[in-house]
Amino acid sequence: MNPLDYARAHSAEALAELEEFLRIPSISTQAEHKPDMERAAGWLRDQLLAAGFPRAEVMPTAGHPIVYAEWQPHPGRPTILVYGHYDVQPADPLDLWRTPPFEPTRIGDDLFGRGSSDDKGQLYTHVTAVKAFKETLGAPPVNIRCLFEGEEESGSPSLAPFIQKHKELLAADVAVVSDGQIIDKETPAIVYGLRGISYLEVKVTGPAGDLHSGGYGGAVHNPIHALSTMIAGLHDANGRITIPGFYDSVRDLDPQERAGLARIPFDRDAWLQQAGVSQAWGEPDYSIIERTGARPALDVNGIWGGYIEPGAKTVLPSKAYAKISMRLVPDQEPQEAFRLIEQHLKAIAPKTVSVEVQYLHGGNPAIVRRDSAPMKAAVRAYAAAFGAEPIFVRTGGSIPVIAEFQKELGIETILMGFGLPDDNLHAPNEKFHLPNYFRGIETVIRFQEFLAG
Amino acid sequence: MNPLDYARAHSAEALAELEEFLRIPSISTQAEHKPDMERAAGWLRDQLLAAGFPRAEVMPTAGHPIVYAEWQPHPGRPTILVYGHYDVQPADPLDLWRTPPFEPTRIGDDLFGRGSSDDKGQLYTHVTAVKAFKETLGAPPVNIRCLFEGEEESGSPSLAPFIQKHKELLAADVAVVSDGQIIDKETPAIVYGLRGISYLEVKVTGPAGDLHSGGYGGAVHNPIHALSTMIAGLHDANGRITIPGFYDSVRDLDPQERAGLARIPFDRDAWLQQAGVSQAWGEPDYSIIERTGARPALDVNGIWGGYIEPGAKTVLPSKAYAKISMRLVPDQEPQEAFRLIEQHLKAIAPKTVSVEVQYLHGGNPAIVRRDSAPMKAAVRAYAAAFGAEPIFVRTGGSIPVIAEFQKELGIETILMGFGLPDDNLHAPNEKFHLPNYFRGIETVIRFQEFLAG
Repeated sequence: MNPLDYARAHSAEALAELEEFLRIPSISTQAEHKPDMERAAGWLRDQLLAAGFPRAEVMPTAGHPIVYAEWQPHPGRPTILVYGHYDVQPADPLDLWRTPPFEPTRIGDDLFGRGSSDDKGQLYTHVTAVKAFKETLGAPPVNIRCLFEGEEESGSPSLAPFIQKHKELLAADVAVVSDGQIIDKETPAIVYGLRGISYLEVKVTGPAGDLHSGGYGGAVHNPIHALSTMIAGLHDANGRITIPGFYDSVRDLDPQERAGLARIPFDRDAWLQQAGVSQAWGEPDYSIIERTGARPALDVNGIWGGYIEPGAKTVLPSKAYAKISMRLVPDQEPQEAFRLIEQHLKAIAPKTVSVEVQYLHGGNPAIVRRDSAPMKAAVRAYAAAFGAEPIFVRTGGSIPVIAEFQKELGIETILMGFGLPDDNLHAPNEKFHLPNYFRGIETVIRFQEFLAG
Repeated sequence: MNPLDYARAHSAEALAELEEFLRIPSISTQAEHKPDMERAAGWLRDQLLAAGFPRAEVMPTAGHPIVYAEWQPHPGRPTILVYGHYDVQPADPLDLWRTPPFEPTRIGDDLFGRGSSDDKGQLYTHVTAVKAFKETLGAPPVNIRCLFEGEEESGSPSLAPFIQKHKELLAADVAVVSDGQIIDKETPAIVYGLRGISYLEVKVTGPAGDLHSGGYGGAVHNPIHALSTMIAGLHDANGRITIPGFYDSVRDLDPQERAGLARIPFDRDAWLQQAGVSQAWGEPDYSIIERTGARPALDVNGIWGGYIEPGAKTVLPSKAYAKISMRLVPDQEPQEAFRLIEQHLKAIAPKTVSVEVQYLHGGNPAIVRRDSAPMKAAVRAYAAAFGAEPIFVRTGGSIPVIAEFQKELGIETILMGFGLPDDNLHAPNEKFHLPNYFRGIETVIRFQEFLAG
């Protein structure tokens, strides 16, 4: 039996293992889930060993551990470095989930559960592919190293130090990351551009303590009003970001690239439906694909202050807070973007309040070549598994590790995603389309075969 | 022994009873405290019976019960209706309290605890005063009815229906409300004007569900941005409210009243210190006393949306919320103010979002006469107990019951407050200045004596 047939014959097993993975609530941003993080890392190591990797271990970091594995059966052939993450987003708001987030539930062709698409399901295609090689040919046709981190959803603070410290362990010819999406279930895509991110928290302080709004309202500036005014001042009426200097390092899109992006199939009504809005918003001179993939953006991801429980409390609060993230494109830099917004927020803050701005995390934007040998192998693998040529796209999310691989290991990354645009990432009812899971396993098998030559 | 000497001799007992009262966490806005509300009502009824009231009972309402008591020893003399509330504000944020909110703690001359000043301590002066009459003269010198509600901190939804239903039970010549503050510990004050309130909640909906800000940021309007812009649009740069028509029914302050308000002792530095701010804010043409007592105000009392836990989540949220209250002055009306803000919020909302506005509660502003016989008795009582003439002031808080007494029972209200401006009402570390408690008891005793003639 060849590896592809083996994988097809053992799809039920691959599904059962993924469901086991999804039952572990490995939420990296919430301290109470630390034991679950350790459990997820140990489970993943055990599966890598079972898949045939002669070396697989849980390696400590300053934060959540990294799961590392290697199998180098063919010294003369290329080595791929597979990256993925076993941590997941928080599941809240829980009341909007139709199935329990950590009890994977199959509805039709979809598997619902937190982390199903981002990133456990996509990561696990690689484990399953290697197992298929082991069970049929005894070993994969190329050399493989795995780097699975547990802090992607909290900004990967330990990843760069780990890469810098373990360059030899991670030496490879190309990196492969399956943590993205394709166009639709019949149309694969390869992402060659990713936005970066700069994430921060703002604290606005008005009075030193909470006040009674009856006694002080009208004579003390409410920090919620001040913060609201500052947030209102971050965009103009067209959705363009008003931070001075913000667009200075944004690389213009050349006509050829815009033409390429315009060829990506795009159904405006379907997009509106998926987004759950009646109309789009943002820079009028750019298409929606450009706005979300090739242009920077700024979003308040959270805001809070004062009394937010049911009922009424007449408080004039001392403090108001916001979490803000900026999506960056080449050649913007996270720290520089932070410096600009910090400066701007302090400049536009009324004198009646004080403002503190804290950098939480960041990642560089990235663009990779479309004509390398691994990229060509990936194109052929997708075409064989999906029966359609992959389309080259840019995407709005951030995978900071790509810039890190380039910088520290000198390698490019193939973004071999298998998710779909309606997978509800970072939202209630996250799901993974199961045919994509199985085609993903086939794509990985074929990619290794094509790369081996 | 006369009642005053009795009260002085039994101050330790009065303090112990108040501490017992404060230990009951009677938070009316939080469902889990319903048993505590019932406990507080029953405790208060028992104390009224012990103070000599021949009738005292816990009367059900659609919400929390009302404690009613009456003692009419002198059919020919005036009847006073004492109003107070046994419910308290929520205690959050708990981490800012220096002592446990429901474990009354004496530090120097102050008694710390939620409800100590607002309103258990002030309410209890009346219970103690009646007990002093009972133990010395056998009965108070006037007729007394007590109306103690348990929903003041949640907008008194059951109070107006109760008053309308029980007009005969509540028939009186004047109402007395001790739920306010004086100038400082040596300078009593009588409030003759109170602001009303109109309290509402706003929900702004952008996308139907939460989205990944990486995938959609830049092309979907974030409801937090929309809400912030709307809030920013509620005031101009001078702190004047920009809602069209909002000031139309605001009665102008005449020069004589402004002159009276200007005579109120006001230490700007002390006020800034108390408010915990470095500078005041608001309408430049009005003094701070006018801004907080005689002019309307609008405050966002709470705002929330998106991810508000520790750490970072890259969500573009579906919804953003705000609780907003407007403080009203004669002749503004809560429902009309709500109608105006609802209309304005919908008018300024961007088309990319939908807006729902919900009325939570309201109360009319009120002004009472300064030359009635009960008012003159109150002035003499304060002067005797504090050794200083009370000053006539207007205040920013709301006691909607005053308008209700006027409308339903045809009586005016004497606002006989004993709190201090730094009592931290509705905030952590609420306290009651104990000398005010004891002078309050004396003021109530003397008021009843002067009113009896």
